Amino acid sequence: MQLSKLLNPNKICVVGASEKEGFGGDTCRNIVKYMDLNRVFFVSPTRDKVFDVPCYKSIGDVPENFDLVIICTPKATIEGILKEAHAKGARGAVLYASGYSEVGTPECKADEESLKKICKELDMAVMGPNCGGFVNFKDDTYAFAFISEERDRRGSVGLVSQSGQICLSLLDSPNMKYSYSISSGNSSIVTMEDYMDFLVDDEGTKVVAVYLEGVKNPQKLISTFKKAAQKRKPIVVLKAGRSEKGQQIAASHTGSLAGSDKVFDAIFKKFGVIRVDDIEELLATSLMFATLESIPQKATVASMNYSGGETSVCADLGHLHGVEFPDFDQKTLTSLREKLPFYATPNNPLDMTASLSNDADGYAEVLKTVMADENIGLVAIGYTLLLDIADPCIHYMYQGIEKALRTGVKKPIVMIPFVENTRNFEYTDKLEKLGITILPSAKYGFSIIKYLMDFVNYDYAEVELDLALPEYTLEGEGEALTEHESKKLLAKYGVKTPSEKVCTTHEEAIDFANQISYPVVAKIDSLDILHKSDLGCVKVNIKNDEELRAAFDTVMNNAKTNCPNARIGGILVQQMAKAGMEVIVGVSSDPQFGPSVLCGLGGVFVEVFKDTALCACPVSKKEAVKMIQSLKASKLLNGYRGTAKLDVEALADTIVNISRFACDNKNTLKELDVNPVFVYEDGVAAVDALVINYKK
Amino acid sequence: MQLSKLLNPNKICVVGASEKEGFGGDTCRNIVKYMDLNRVFFVSPTRDKVFDVPCYKSIGDVPENFDLVIICTPKATIEGILKEAHAKGARGAVLYASGYSEVGTPECKADEESLKKICKELDMAVMGPNCGGFVNFKDDTYAFAFISEERDRRGSVGLVSQSGQICLSLLDSPNMKYSYSISSGNSSIVTMEDYMDFLVDDEGTKVVAVYLEGVKNPQKLISTFKKAAQKRKPIVVLKAGRSEKGQQIAASHTGSLAGSDKVFDAIFKKFGVIRVDDIEELLATSLMFATLESIPQKATVASMNYSGGETSVCADLGHLHGVEFPDFDQKTLTSLREKLPFYATPNNPLDMTASLSNDADGYAEVLKTVMADENIGLVAIGYTLLLDIADPCIHYMYQGIEKALRTGVKKPIVMIPFVENTRNFEYTDKLEKLGITILPSAKYGFSIIKYLMDFVNYDYAEVELDLALPEYTLEGEGEALTEHESKKLLAKYGVKTPSEKVCTTHEEAIDFANQISYPVVAKIDSLDILHKSDLGCVKVNIKNDEELRAAFDTVMNNAKTNCPNARIGGILVQQMAKAGMEVIVGVSSDPQFGPSVLCGLGGVFVEVFKDTALCACPVSKKEAVKMIQSLKASKLLNGYRGTAKLDVEALADTIVNISRFACDNKNTLKELDVNPVFVYEDGVAAVDALVINYKK
Repeated sequence: MQLSKLLNPNKICVVGASEKEGFGGDTCRNIVKYMDLNRVFFVSPTRDKVFDVPCYKSIGDVPENFDLVIICTPKATIEGILKEAHAKGARGAVLYASGYSEVGTPECKADEESLKKICKELDMAVMGPNCGGFVNFKDDTYAFAFISEERDRRGSVGLVSQSGQICLSLLDSPNMKYSYSISSGNSSIVTMEDYMDFLVDDEGTKVVAVYLEGVKNPQKLISTFKKAAQKRKPIVVLKAGRSEKGQQIAASHTGSLAGSDKVFDAIFKKFGVIRVDDIEELLATSLMFATLESIPQKATVASMNYSGGETSVCADLGHLHGVEFPDFDQKTLTSLREKLPFYATPNNPLDMTASLSNDADGYAEVLKTVMADENIGLVAIGYTLLLDIADPCIHYMYQGIEKALRTGVKKPIVMIPFVENTRNFEYTDKLEKLGITILPSAKYGFSIIKYLMDFVNYDYAEVELDLALPEYTLEGEGEALTEHESKKLLAKYGVKTPSEKVCTTHEEAIDFANQISYPVVAKIDSLDILHKSDLGCVKVNIKNDEELRAAFDTVMNNAKTNCPNARIGGILVQQMAKAGMEVIVGVSSDPQFGPSVLCGLGGVFVEVFKDTALCACPVSKKEAVKMIQSLKASKLLNGYRGTAKLDVEALADTIVNISRFACDNKNTLKELDVNPVFVYEDGVAAVDALVINYKK
Repeated sequence: MQLSKLLNPNKICVVGASEKEGFGGDTCRNIVKYMDLNRVFFVSPTRDKVFDVPCYKSIGDVPENFDLVIICTPKATIEGILKEAHAKGARGAVLYASGYSEVGTPECKADEESLKKICKELDMAVMGPNCGGFVNFKDDTYAFAFISEERDRRGSVGLVSQSGQICLSLLDSPNMKYSYSISSGNSSIVTMEDYMDFLVDDEGTKVVAVYLEGVKNPQKLISTFKKAAQKRKPIVVLKAGRSEKGQQIAASHTGSLAGSDKVFDAIFKKFGVIRVDDIEELLATSLMFATLESIPQKATVASMNYSGGETSVCADLGHLHGVEFPDFDQKTLTSLREKLPFYATPNNPLDMTASLSNDADGYAEVLKTVMADENIGLVAIGYTLLLDIADPCIHYMYQGIEKALRTGVKKPIVMIPFVENTRNFEYTDKLEKLGITILPSAKYGFSIIKYLMDFVNYDYAEVELDLALPEYTLEGEGEALTEHESKKLLAKYGVKTPSEKVCTTHEEAIDFANQISYPVVAKIDSLDILHKSDLGCVKVNIKNDEELRAAFDTVMNNAKTNCPNARIGGILVQQMAKAGMEVIVGVSSDPQFGPSVLCGLGGVFVEVFKDTALCACPVSKKEAVKMIQSLKASKLLNGYRGTAKLDVEALADTIVNISRFACDNKNTLKELDVNPVFVYEDGVAAVDALVINYKK
């Protein structure tokens, strides 16, 4: 299957050509408006002409071969048309018809499966079903069933959306410019991953924008994300399913499995993929990346405004979104004091005062000064450009910016307005030519700047990119190992565990205890007793032979009394680890994406504050350190209230080792809990562990 | 001073009339464009006419008395002009001139003080200095120095802004409609509080919109907020100073003291004042309140959309913002199944599918069904209205809405677009006439819906509205009481403290211990030793006379050794309280607004997670319960992991009692820490306390 046959076709054929409102008619309307008609054949059994274009009665009548067939007829006709088109050389198709897996019934799901099979046999790259088609803006190819206002939209954002309406909304946005705009529908033959991969490879696409409901081919997704990370090509994703309701809706919309949202978050983070919150952010973030001539060198912002009120708003919004406004250096401050009126207070965010609003040269000087400051990565100019220009300020500002960029140190610039509006087209274009994008109003604007700052800070070299994807979709019941077996497995990966041995007699226990020296802990060793403490099957702080003998009996008796049918391996005697800061390290396995490691401080921190970090495996040492540092509770590890700094390095090593174990067992491991890991000033100890494998 | 002379004048006089760009010229431009010139006199010593309006050489030449003088001349001329205008009957003035406290120098601050004095002597209501003036849209009175696009802006939002630029930005927003728009500048004579109070009283003002940098008269602010709360008139505030940088900028902008941001938050919350994040939210939230015919009866939302993608986005954004989408009831679901296509899945948020996008009657039926559902308070219709209508969908939708509102159960409706744009004016107006506001794009939209839901949930009857404001601005050093003195004071207010006594001899200590029974605690009683534990001046769990005797000596010796100059009152012997859940209750005193009570769970919860709640005093019982419930850690009080539910009622009573103590000492109390309060299954114990008063 070759996507270029679908997305970069030469000749195309529309089956079910029509003038009526609806998919067929609107497709033809777009074609006659935008395309070279020498590239197009219309087929209609009932009409001689559609919009003055002659129609053929059947595909067989079409006099030439073609690459792409656009099928505007109902579901029942699809299979036959695909075969006829295939005979005419077509290796790409667009299927608008719905009634497949999105309906949710077993029959409709089966129809989609059989459609997939046919497409595979014919080796055809098929968009849909249940889709809106696409536009290739580079070649003016319109296989597209939605009507939008006429406007030049040629640009470098490659969009693929599982929702036709979102695709259309983005086309309606006044300033958005595309390489491709794809409404991919159920995406069951050519998948979302295939489209993204195509767009990451496409040289005319500077940024990939995606509305995603679910993933069908995790392997492909990950290899695409890896390629994009290494190329530094931004992928901006609006992913449905942050909420349970959102997941249900996505499932009934395109039949997608939304997957665990937290795992998606972890994967996006690993690959530097930007996850946005809504449609406006999707388009504006993509547009920003498409417009900027270069990515900021530093993840810092200078904010410049004409008024104190707007400057305060920027300071507060930056703070709210975690955007950093570094102080200007002394040279900058001195220079700004000279260039601004005496009543201005040079600071970042900067209130230039309104005095520069009609002074292009003065504006240029101030902007040059700010751009030359080494602490600054990005300049954010606060200004509300309206549709109609009543205030001449923008003329002077534009001249000032143009001059500053021509004659000074060039840094990336964005403009932040304060009120929603359609922006003046002339100045939007002029600013775009200078590499300046106008973000949406301030709260969105700072949210988008934060995405940019995160992208600047992302470094793929710090990250393990080759995800431990399972070889098949994981599902089914789990089966636990004993604590001792679990720890033995982890110990092989360098996880520090206390010395321990399963003993079957008093003598064996006492011998071992003397060998490792008291105090020791005695626990039941049983596959069938998971909540050992609750059943009186754990004794701690055993100080001598006599106590151990008694503990052995107590634990054994409690086990036999409370769980008469449990399989018992003996008594696990282990070194009693001294108490440390309790950390939980866990692994859970996503059916599609395999293992992720979670860490958090023990007890209430995880359970009440949900203060955890998650990273898809494998986890690099740097990723592990960042996971730990990202915890709010990490303060408690870093020397809190005068206590000693704890061994974060050793904890990070433990996370890496656990991740290695999880990767090696990616096809079998369902869950792993290492709880607690005690963290000390020097070293760590994994005191308890539980491995749960999928039942074979 | 009467604000009506300033804001509702009949005749006005412009001093410094001009045709030049700038404050004088732009004021005259606005006047000749919008005002009845029979109400206006222009004064210019140099010009015979300004824009064809004859000018008088001096104020003395003006043939009639007038109410308001607009002074467009520099600072040095102000005093004389005020006096002349006063002689002509003026009791209101607008002063554009800057160079006062916003400059920050002692001279300029002194100038502002002397200006205030003169205005007080003349009993004139003066706007400014350093302001942009105002428009009274009801009477077409323009005392306003900014030029904005010509458009009908008559409406019911009363705006007062300390930033002229923000005032102007809000005028630029296409759909905003005002009763008054006031750019108040330094607001040092007529204060922000005065304007707000005026607007809360004004019958033509449905909602008060405020950009606030600081407050000068806390008493007035609070009485205004109280009046608004009781009237249920919404006040929407954008308050500068969420961040430290934002506070600094506000201070240098209008010379305002920004105050503790958390205290402002607590006060806004107490009075149901809506605090927004930026300018767009300020205008859109105000516009929403002005447009809605009624406030929702329930704080719940139904979301209706044409596409699955947009529906998922709404579900996720609602979740992100804490907006509740209740499930539809069975009747609604049955009815929706009949009215929607078979492939639609009736749910809230609701994907109606695109099939209703050209069916007005069908749309009306679905909307009626949704509005009739008793679980629903507000309907949020997702639709991106553009400036130019290409898609006829809005025609059908509008007809459907109109019909549904005419023939069904009427509920408040808002529209949420997904892409920024100037909205089509015809439909914006038509929808507004139906009481429907178009919110800004989705992320803003749901943020604003959350503000509305909070307003719906606010009930002033649950809240103590008469704040314990200090009688003068509090400042200066603090002076601590001993633990024993502190607890004695609190005990008088019903705060439960352990029995305790300061003993000067072994015998006295032993007698008292036997009276209250062992175990007891012995602590040093000293004004000069605050960190008792660190200095070995606390012994706990003393079980008998002998141990007490030893503890007495140890504590005393440690005190004398470690703090040789400390004043020592004796040894404080107290009942040893059994351990409970540790809670911190504190009071801190704001210089302007007096005491607020803070509570949070002890130790890391407060210090690492900043998991605290703050309420300005007095605190009602319901407020105290809400404070506790608002803590993330409140789960630990409510029966966590099978432990018993703790006595939240008793904790709430303690908070109320501490608040009463703070109120009675509002002019003297600087800080109070009750740490820890042990909370038990039954009751609480305030184990340690520290009162710090302002030094006399």
